[in-house]
Amino acid sequence: MKIIIVGASGTMGKHLTNAFKNEHEVITAATKGCDINVDITSPESIENMYKKAGAFDALVSTAGPTFVGPWSKLTDKEFRKGIDGKMMGQINLVLIGQHYINPRGSFTLITGALSHDPQKNFANATAANGAVDAFVRSAAIELENGIRINTVSPTVIENSPQYFPFFPGDIPVTMLQLEYAFRKAIFGANTGQVIKPG
Amino acid sequence: MKIIIVGASGTMGKHLTNAFKNEHEVITAATKGCDINVDITSPESIENMYKKAGAFDALVSTAGPTFVGPWSKLTDKEFRKGIDGKMMGQINLVLIGQHYINPRGSFTLITGALSHDPQKNFANATAANGAVDAFVRSAAIELENGIRINTVSPTVIENSPQYFPFFPGDIPVTMLQLEYAFRKAIFGANTGQVIKPG
Repeated sequence: MKIIIVGASGTMGKHLTNAFKNEHEVITAATKGCDINVDITSPESIENMYKKAGAFDALVSTAGPTFVGPWSKLTDKEFRKGIDGKMMGQINLVLIGQHYINPRGSFTLITGALSHDPQKNFANATAANGAVDAFVRSAAIELENGIRINTVSPTVIENSPQYFPFFPGDIPVTMLQLEYAFRKAIFGANTGQVIKPG
Repeated sequence: MKIIIVGASGTMGKHLTNAFKNEHEVITAATKGCDINVDITSPESIENMYKKAGAFDALVSTAGPTFVGPWSKLTDKEFRKGIDGKMMGQINLVLIGQHYINPRGSFTLITGALSHDPQKNFANATAANGAVDAFVRSAAIELENGIRINTVSPTVIENSPQYFPFFPGDIPVTMLQLEYAFRKAIFGANTGQVIKPG
């Protein structure tokens, strides 16, 4: 299977690249340092990525910039970071990628438990997650040629201890649990699902 | 109670204005034809509306432009209609309005069942609804001074028959059911809830 991993320079992207590269053709993409440079806030950059990658079987996104910070600092301007990044960045990966993906291929996006279990400082990520979770449900009934779409929605990840204090009471998700949620999305048959690792 | 109704020139806004005006001070707002002109896609226009209205007890939004149309026509450009309208328009009503609302006041926004029950042609509204539903949950834990926030989330409305063919199997919500969902949000004690009329 030919798998494009967007956000492959991050912790999650590196783990998935290592997990899949022996059995699959993995193409890594990120703002820098990967097979293909891509800025997901730019539809043109996304289009260029797909042109370079060619037809593929699975698109995996682990990329999602958002504004993290106190509610009192949150205005339209800060909110746009998550809109252009985690929300429209990922939605555009699908709207554009559908013209390059092979029949019966799949899109797997990244959201997070915040959509239904909010924590302070994360209103922007919460809204972006909610938008993408909902988009995935609508895209699942629109995509043709057997193309599937799901999102993986973890709470805080074990190797991001800097975020632990912001998620009181949340048991961190292990990298292996996260990997298996992506495996379910990529190699399973579901579509339109919000997959919670663990 | 002093209630600002945004989108008051629409079917839903007119109904709520009539329902509340005898017992409350209702200030109507819309792009035109109401007490105050407001364009919710502009944070400056929203700020001006609140300055004109003065301190208030409840903000009700029934306004939410989105792109409705075939999936094949959906690109970043069309998607921005729902982002700037139903999503950020309503989120900015809260982010800005929190500085004008009275203690123990409330915000009531409008979303829709599409967030969890998608229909074809409505991916943009689906994502905007999902974003606002999630935002409401996060804002509920951030807003201070006892300020509450909820969203009313109907399926298709009885007096919008032009939309019936797009919502097969959905029993239309009556205007009275819709009004009572808003009553629960405005005059009840809940916060962070997605209230389904009916």
